[in-house]
Amino acid sequence: MSLDAVLARIDADLPNATERLMDLLRIRSISTDPAYKAECDKAADWLVADLRSLGVDASKRPTPGHPMVVGHAGDAEDGTGPHLLFYGHYDVQPVDPLDLWDRDPFDPEVQDTPQGKVIRARGASDDKGQLMTFIEACRAWKEVHGSLPGRLTFFFEGEEESGSPSLVPFMKENTAELKSDIALICDTGLFDPDTPAITTMLRGLLGEELTITAANKDLHSGMYGGLAMNPIRVLSKIIAGLHDETGRITLPGFYDGVPELSNSIRAQWESLGFDDQQFLGDVGLSVPAGEQGRTPLEMIWSRPTCEVNGIWGGYEGDGFKTVLPGQAHAKISFRLVGTQDPLKLRETFRDYVRAQLPADCSVEFKGHGASPAGVMQTESPAFEAARQALTDEWPKPAAYTGCGGSIPIAGYFKTVLDMDAMLIGFGKDDDQIHSPNEKYDMRSFHKGIRSWARVLAALNS
Amino acid sequence: MSLDAVLARIDADLPNATERLMDLLRIRSISTDPAYKAECDKAADWLVADLRSLGVDASKRPTPGHPMVVGHAGDAEDGTGPHLLFYGHYDVQPVDPLDLWDRDPFDPEVQDTPQGKVIRARGASDDKGQLMTFIEACRAWKEVHGSLPGRLTFFFEGEEESGSPSLVPFMKENTAELKSDIALICDTGLFDPDTPAITTMLRGLLGEELTITAANKDLHSGMYGGLAMNPIRVLSKIIAGLHDETGRITLPGFYDGVPELSNSIRAQWESLGFDDQQFLGDVGLSVPAGEQGRTPLEMIWSRPTCEVNGIWGGYEGDGFKTVLPGQAHAKISFRLVGTQDPLKLRETFRDYVRAQLPADCSVEFKGHGASPAGVMQTESPAFEAARQALTDEWPKPAAYTGCGGSIPIAGYFKTVLDMDAMLIGFGKDDDQIHSPNEKYDMRSFHKGIRSWARVLAALNS
Repeated sequence: MSLDAVLARIDADLPNATERLMDLLRIRSISTDPAYKAECDKAADWLVADLRSLGVDASKRPTPGHPMVVGHAGDAEDGTGPHLLFYGHYDVQPVDPLDLWDRDPFDPEVQDTPQGKVIRARGASDDKGQLMTFIEACRAWKEVHGSLPGRLTFFFEGEEESGSPSLVPFMKENTAELKSDIALICDTGLFDPDTPAITTMLRGLLGEELTITAANKDLHSGMYGGLAMNPIRVLSKIIAGLHDETGRITLPGFYDGVPELSNSIRAQWESLGFDDQQFLGDVGLSVPAGEQGRTPLEMIWSRPTCEVNGIWGGYEGDGFKTVLPGQAHAKISFRLVGTQDPLKLRETFRDYVRAQLPADCSVEFKGHGASPAGVMQTESPAFEAARQALTDEWPKPAAYTGCGGSIPIAGYFKTVLDMDAMLIGFGKDDDQIHSPNEKYDMRSFHKGIRSWARVLAALNS
Repeated sequence: MSLDAVLARIDADLPNATERLMDLLRIRSISTDPAYKAECDKAADWLVADLRSLGVDASKRPTPGHPMVVGHAGDAEDGTGPHLLFYGHYDVQPVDPLDLWDRDPFDPEVQDTPQGKVIRARGASDDKGQLMTFIEACRAWKEVHGSLPGRLTFFFEGEEESGSPSLVPFMKENTAELKSDIALICDTGLFDPDTPAITTMLRGLLGEELTITAANKDLHSGMYGGLAMNPIRVLSKIIAGLHDETGRITLPGFYDGVPELSNSIRAQWESLGFDDQQFLGDVGLSVPAGEQGRTPLEMIWSRPTCEVNGIWGGYEGDGFKTVLPGQAHAKISFRLVGTQDPLKLRETFRDYVRAQLPADCSVEFKGHGASPAGVMQTESPAFEAARQALTDEWPKPAAYTGCGGSIPIAGYFKTVLDMDAMLIGFGKDDDQIHSPNEKYDMRSFHKGIRSWARVLAALNS
């Protein structure tokens, strides 16, 4: 059977595939920082060239932000399976604090660890290593069969780590070109090292940045302290008021559209044997700190949250400075579930903040993305075919899971293009994505490529 | 009378005095930042050399931090007046945010402004310009009389802007050498542009830095959000709880030792006609934000405060990063009055913080100075003599005032050396000390030098 030949080819070509991934990892494509704009462009060019080497009709497509990469292979007459669209993102998170990295984040290296070989670099897991699993599966397929399977569209963006501002406009402008039968998204993880997962429940994200201004300049805390309002105090009160004593978020109407779990999903999650003590223990914690009365998996998969992602104001340097700052800043995000409406909640949040402002204080807001949660329809036969293909590759059967992170693209495929999305990924909890020393297991990379070959075969059989 | 000759000499030498001050202002003596250690040393050397040029037996004296400068002139047989010690500090505040300065903070310039000539530079007012008023008065006196007046000790430190960690140990080790009859301190301001002031009430300062740690690294807010405690949320709650709805500080026993104003002082302050609308309006504010039921002058002169001087944690850069940080930090200070005990309140504050910590969170503290308030005994005849001397120089009579800022040295002269301190300075509210574009009025500099000549004459008559 030709799938075996493809899998054999994947095994033989793994060293070259690793070299190609390291090439891509050397590109410093930090999308949120304007200083790296040229590097994002370079990553897009790299992908266009690589896709063209597979015979894909690929091109870089400009946006007001970083470019998209779109490529097509096959046509309506090709193959027997559905028209598949594969999505990934070539941008990466910032690397600070840099001093906590053991090496240059953009100088990738294959390292031996007690848990096996890993590829260490920013973006190794999120998402360059993951997107390359699909491209490498296609490459092996092409080398064995002479062409790619069925009809394929490739779609890569470079703004996933900065709220994807250009994504929806681009999808809307190119609906006819992008519309396919199923979207495949590789930006999620295994459930555990031996259990692959198809993620069917994704939290949405609402990001807000606020600046509270009191005095029109920094003041001397001796000269003005006690008479002038301190904006850090105002900001702290606003943040402190966002949760009640039971860990629930206090914004009015915040829980509108938050569903309770069905009994079947609740039973399935309980059977997964999630070890929250291990999960928390890995990062030095021991007590689930979310809403009272919820299980740990609910806290991270199916309940909404509010987090402060950054706060700053006044003097942060060595020593002490008796300043009474004129401004205080915070970046705050909400993870959303079910049918929570991000744009409505943005206004609810801003109204709450404005209502907390004392005399002489003003606030400015900056929105950083607003995407609804994604809930996949697992009744489609393609889901069961893919689940079986993954089960064939890994030691344990594949599971349908939730995901605490936000992959807004999944929601956009539904709302803008009316497509179902299938989220399959091979990341691990200890990949340190968004943190120093990010890595991707070589086993994830290798079995990830093999998994995609199996899924492509299953969906085209 | 020879005072007139000294005053004339001061007037004639003003251009040279200005050049000497600009020389000192070019030295980047930021004491709180270890990167500027050599610059602090250079400022001390500069002062030693300048004092020696006046015939003062001056030397740089090492400490575990930045050096002291100590100098002596005259002996027990000299003069008819008290043995005077003059104190100032050669260190300056950090200069950030640098982009708000109109020029290099360490490239001083005399500028014409609608309010008259000013000297613009970091430290122009706090405290290099002020300390040079006394040295220049001495220089003119020496040039007219051939020697300095009476018995004089000069004492300059380089750690005033970073909590003066070496000061008390140095005073204790050198008590016999430093003990004098009265300390003169030039680090305060005029009450208004035409009204000189002798500050008789100074707030103390307790500085604390705290770091709240939850997870042992930064986490992905999607993967862990809702399950892991966010230390910024913990810190915000701690800060929000420090004040009640009436603006009072909630720490138990905080107001022990906080006196009510005497009726005479209250009447004197009311007669000063303090324009709080102007004072607040100058910095873009309009409403006194301190304790309910207190006058604006009480808020800044005679009531204790709690201010957050800095806060930071998580991502502060451009764009957005969905991080759930492992740590959050703040610098918090308390201004103290009356007989509030800084060391006792430090423990009270730390106990309060520890009691607020949820599971899995820990806190580390760093103390940044702990000095009691200073309350001067104005009954001494020297106070009245100095007040008259100042009244002779300025358009309006000199006043006894309070000061919201902390000049811990005043308290230390009392507690360590059992000396009264006389705080006379010529700064103005709009000097922007501790802020970008600090300046010192040329009128403050000129009339300040003349004022000291008059005070020296009055105390030695």
